[in-house]
Amino acid sequence: VQHLRAIRIYLAGPDVFLPDFGKTVFDAKKAMCRQFGFEGVSPMDGAPDLAGLEPFAQGLAIYRANLAHMDSCEGVIANMTPFRGISMDAGTAFEMGYMAAQGKFVLGYTHVTEPYAERSERYDRAGTRDRIDHYASGTSIERFDMADNLMMVGAVYACGWQVEQSDVVTGEELTSLTGFKACLTQLAARTGA
Amino acid sequence: VQHLRAIRIYLAGPDVFLPDFGKTVFDAKKAMCRQFGFEGVSPMDGAPDLAGLEPFAQGLAIYRANLAHMDSCEGVIANMTPFRGISMDAGTAFEMGYMAAQGKFVLGYTHVTEPYAERSERYDRAGTRDRIDHYASGTSIERFDMADNLMMVGAVYACGWQVEQSDVVTGEELTSLTGFKACLTQLAARTGA
Repeated sequence: VQHLRAIRIYLAGPDVFLPDFGKTVFDAKKAMCRQFGFEGVSPMDGAPDLAGLEPFAQGLAIYRANLAHMDSCEGVIANMTPFRGISMDAGTAFEMGYMAAQGKFVLGYTHVTEPYAERSERYDRAGTRDRIDHYASGTSIERFDMADNLMMVGAVYACGWQVEQSDVVTGEELTSLTGFKACLTQLAARTGA
Repeated sequence: VQHLRAIRIYLAGPDVFLPDFGKTVFDAKKAMCRQFGFEGVSPMDGAPDLAGLEPFAQGLAIYRANLAHMDSCEGVIANMTPFRGISMDAGTAFEMGYMAAQGKFVLGYTHVTEPYAERSERYDRAGTRDRIDHYASGTSIERFDMADNLMMVGAVYACGWQVEQSDVVTGEELTSLTGFKACLTQLAARTGA
């Protein structure tokens, strides 16, 4: 399959919370996309001017910019590595839903292979002093042999893919490109890039 | 404004993880919807037959059923109360994105009024023994005066609403109907129901 322009991929994930808004990781992801003949689109591209805006208005401006980025892309590769809790970053989850609703491709990877159910149990075993939501004790635990909540895993699978799961060097869970490369490889095989 | 049939509202939230798959809360939410002239649609309505399916296939069947429920609704009221981490349930976040992408109304409430930034800081201060993702230390914290990640709050605000935030009796954070009723009241005022 030939394309007049490169397939544009939205780079979703908690990468934006890394130092310098994840510039190092986004630059590396974009370079890797180019090697596969794709174009990576970072949420930080052409970041909106936030000067003079109150914090809440800043957040909204970023929300609108992210939607515009997603609307310009054919699909998403999501970093689904758990972030400050048992699940992947919730903002990234929102973005997967946003792309899935439009029938765009939804790929994802995680660098934590401990099953979702076990992470949930581990969280529930922690003392209430250290847990954010002590009131969630007694709630049930999803047991579907999935990497995360079924809504995100389902979106990936519905596209005919699977969530790429890999263990990486300790400390590099959020920054490693292992899973991202695995997703690009899948995508290239499908698109003939 | 008159409607030939009641506006259908998808009831999103971690309510499905409550005992008996949240039946008590869903029944109460549906009754409250009827009082306002709306129809509440629970993810558990007409639950798919999971007999004989492997766990992963069960998860996918529920994913597809949830999408069908959402496709049949005009909008969503999401329980955004934090769930096993600093953020709302990630599956619910996915559903908000899925509805937002289709231009449907996205309302939400939370029964935890502690700001997102403070919850993040509290999580980061916890010892690595009790934290699920010790590797997330050193990542930045969103400071947009929002109730949760900007993607979900943005979706609510983009519809002209705000996230309903209320403190409730300790222990009833996940089951109280306080925020849900506030959302219905907002919606009724807009639709003239």
